[in-house]
Amino acid sequence: MAHIQLPNEELPGIVGLFNFKPETAKPLGALADVLLRGPSPLTSGERELIASYVSNLNNCHFCHTSHGATAMAHLSCDVNLLDDIKQDFITIPVSEKLRALLDIAAKVQKGGKHVLEEDIAAAREAGAVDQEIHDTVLIAAAFCMFNRYVDGLGTWASKENEAYREMGERMAFVGYNRY
Amino acid sequence: MAHIQLPNEELPGIVGLFNFKPETAKPLGALADVLLRGPSPLTSGERELIASYVSNLNNCHFCHTSHGATAMAHLSCDVNLLDDIKQDFITIPVSEKLRALLDIAAKVQKGGKHVLEEDIAAAREAGAVDQEIHDTVLIAAAFCMFNRYVDGLGTWASKENEAYREMGERMAFVGYNRY
Repeated sequence: MAHIQLPNEELPGIVGLFNFKPETAKPLGALADVLLRGPSPLTSGERELIASYVSNLNNCHFCHTSHGATAMAHLSCDVNLLDDIKQDFITIPVSEKLRALLDIAAKVQKGGKHVLEEDIAAAREAGAVDQEIHDTVLIAAAFCMFNRYVDGLGTWASKENEAYREMGERMAFVGYNRY
Repeated sequence: MAHIQLPNEELPGIVGLFNFKPETAKPLGALADVLLRGPSPLTSGERELIASYVSNLNNCHFCHTSHGATAMAHLSCDVNLLDDIKQDFITIPVSEKLRALLDIAAKVQKGGKHVLEEDIAAAREAGAVDQEIHDTVLIAAAFCMFNRYVDGLGTWASKENEAYREMGERMAFVGYNRY
């Protein structure tokens, strides 16, 4: 049971919280939509991988699995992708540029000041441009919020990876702007 | 100099980033406005104190000082409030309820799973209701995002507390919805 009384206890993770307070759900949904599906030189698949990766570093099962499932939908991967994200991409091929951006995202997860000039230089060396660096930092930062919101209020989430497949398809192809 | 090329290098902290990408500035501004100035049983002054307190825990000078100055404007306090927030409120009187909510905010800053049933029980004991617990967790989580965004991209900020007085008044009485 969540730490607060939600209108529908069966709704998992952030979905239950969005129903609790629609006034804050609206800009949060709009932010997720523009960050993960709006204009960016990064594909939505790459952005969902960053979101899921950071969520796993924050030990947030709901966000890691739901955004991992969204990446699966974008990239036409199977459910093994979820474990691969946890294992720092030992199976899925990741470009040098995305690897450098994931390294920046991991620094952001620790704290903004952990990102050093040399991390930015390494990303540029691998071909990243300013918009990609910006979007990576903001996605990583935003999931440090979403993860804390979901777990700080003790919300419920299914443990089964397969339970997230349909949610991932909806998030990938319908989006987050539902409030 | 910031880690990316901003259109106006003189704009401090998140303001420069909002100019870099207006598409993400819009939901971020809307989120700050509803969180800090929208409907809530907590006053805007209390909410800005939570925002400034968490920003100091994240060592984010720009957000600690600008939101501290906004709390100053709401609560008619002088500039000493900024140091008092850093020193965990040794001068300013803080209600038992706000103290319990600040303790929850500090747990959220560490990570969502740090918030325990006993922290929620202590806040209820001090008179906090579900909406106040919800808003505290989301404000603390949101500033874990804003702080990482500002520092992860290495933005510039004035060191002088007095430089934030006018910005605080604008944030308190005009708001955050400017994009």
